[in-house]
Amino acid sequence: MTAAAPLRIRLAGLGSYLPARRVTTRQLATELGVDGDWAERSTGVIERRYAGASDTTVSMASAAAHAALEQADTRADQLDTIIAASTSRQQLIPCTAAFIQRALQCPEGRSFCFDIDATCLSWLVGLHLLSQLVATGRSRATLLVSSEMASRSLNPKEPESALLFGDAAAAAVIRPSAENEASCLNHAAFQTFNSGADLAQFVGAGTDHHPNDPTTRPEMNMFNMNGPAIVRLARRAAPRFIEGFFADVGAQRSDYDTVVAHQASIIGIRSLTKHFGFKPAQVITNLAQRGNTISASIPLALSEAVASGRVQRGQRILMLGTGAGLTLGALDLVF
Amino acid sequence: MTAAAPLRIRLAGLGSYLPARRVTTRQLATELGVDGDWAERSTGVIERRYAGASDTTVSMASAAAHAALEQADTRADQLDTIIAASTSRQQLIPCTAAFIQRALQCPEGRSFCFDIDATCLSWLVGLHLLSQLVATGRSRATLLVSSEMASRSLNPKEPESALLFGDAAAAAVIRPSAENEASCLNHAAFQTFNSGADLAQFVGAGTDHHPNDPTTRPEMNMFNMNGPAIVRLARRAAPRFIEGFFADVGAQRSDYDTVVAHQASIIGIRSLTKHFGFKPAQVITNLAQRGNTISASIPLALSEAVASGRVQRGQRILMLGTGAGLTLGALDLVF
Repeated sequence: MTAAAPLRIRLAGLGSYLPARRVTTRQLATELGVDGDWAERSTGVIERRYAGASDTTVSMASAAAHAALEQADTRADQLDTIIAASTSRQQLIPCTAAFIQRALQCPEGRSFCFDIDATCLSWLVGLHLLSQLVATGRSRATLLVSSEMASRSLNPKEPESALLFGDAAAAAVIRPSAENEASCLNHAAFQTFNSGADLAQFVGAGTDHHPNDPTTRPEMNMFNMNGPAIVRLARRAAPRFIEGFFADVGAQRSDYDTVVAHQASIIGIRSLTKHFGFKPAQVITNLAQRGNTISASIPLALSEAVASGRVQRGQRILMLGTGAGLTLGALDLVF
Repeated sequence: MTAAAPLRIRLAGLGSYLPARRVTTRQLATELGVDGDWAERSTGVIERRYAGASDTTVSMASAAAHAALEQADTRADQLDTIIAASTSRQQLIPCTAAFIQRALQCPEGRSFCFDIDATCLSWLVGLHLLSQLVATGRSRATLLVSSEMASRSLNPKEPESALLFGDAAAAAVIRPSAENEASCLNHAAFQTFNSGADLAQFVGAGTDHHPNDPTTRPEMNMFNMNGPAIVRLARRAAPRFIEGFFADVGAQRSDYDTVVAHQASIIGIRSLTKHFGFKPAQVITNLAQRGNTISASIPLALSEAVASGRVQRGQRILMLGTGAGLTLGALDLVF
């Protein structure tokens, strides 16, 4: 599908939160009974943060949101839309976003709260959907937050995935672009391949294996992943997806100042330059220090790249990644 | 906020699915040890359906989707976007929509799947968000499905809520309006009041009370509701919300052929005519036969009203309701 007109939106502010507790891959490897060298080499992760006793999904989201609001020069009472775009919900009902509205002391009734879930691509999907509301004047200030606590659901019997994940939250305030600003969302595309639906799963916490069902076993409430099969499916599906994206948007790889990819795994990050034609200088990564932080991964990497000066206003950015489903996603943005 | 231009979309087809098993309020009252007359009178529900052993969240969603696709004269392989807008997920990861893509045998990679959750207003929020994509050509055929299995999470010690809910699925296919069609979405508005976040809850199945946490008690994985407090909050917040909605859209109550409300409770339905100024002839209800089917409630009532001829093409419809959060929502649509 050819790209529609750019949406005149701006990531007015970005913020992130990292729990204080650092856990090294070597520590984890010892606990899990695997070789430390292998653990670091196969995941590309050296350390990650794990939520502490005082962290909650909402407290982490709120800390990231405060930072994003400050950078956006926006007050909490100006927000009209609050979206939690994460896999880690605080509780099943109500939506996590309503608790974020409370934690930020937003005046109730002045904003609208709901949750979006596309696993690792939740934030990207949220940006795609919410940008439509902001660009058409239906929202003047949207808060889009991803807050993830993978550490609560890791399976020690599956070290390949248990070694990969970290906890973090990241947030953006999305506002309309001013007349003289280049900031916009050029294009977004997503494709889901359900042959991958069983390759990254958490089969519990739903109607199939209800928490109160006596047949629900503890490992059903843990994350389960077949990494090599995901890589095979992604390698098969991604080339056509990426070429289609560039054709629709009328761009080529060299048009992008920065590529912000989901920090899924070292294999995923390496394939950007090895298989998908991007230059090493374009690709930013924080995998070694952060691990895979699920939906927080892309906005966290972007937030850190903005904070370090690596990404600046007016730059053209390609965000892309994979999520459980298996879903491929890409989004072209002028920052 | 004044309404933006109408979105040129059309609910091209609607469909629903009801599990075969009928459970009367009198049966339930006997099981719960409460008076049958009181149970019927206080809830307004005479019977509801409960999912059977062969029903799953996805099988129910798919049955509703098939009916909607047929009515929309749309093939599953034409869908480019599939959204599960429900509180009842089949499992935590991946999104329920990816499993619906599989169940409908949609060609993988040709559609994009994710989930939206705003509890009872999930479908209405989904319609609001997805209509933007359809109206701007970013989607040509979107499937929006709500599939709920409240029966898995009722608390027998809380008969007020245990007597209220039923299981159902309902779906719509959203497509662009043709030049000669009046169908459009005029306006949508939502407001969240977090002082109500604790009044309708399911505190488990998330990071706060993880299913594997030994301190998580069975009742945390059941629905909990303070009905009278919700009614008080809704009565306080709704008048201003509704008047604001009519002012923004430039309409009055008599402009609507039909009011399709969330079938939250008999008190909620009655208040439409008793407190909010609608005429009995405008308001449709299926509460007595269906109970409160959470997010499926509004699209199920609309689907049944279309099937019976009560709602016809070109009619102006007001959809409205409350969801946990507490969120108020309203949407003005020319069918």
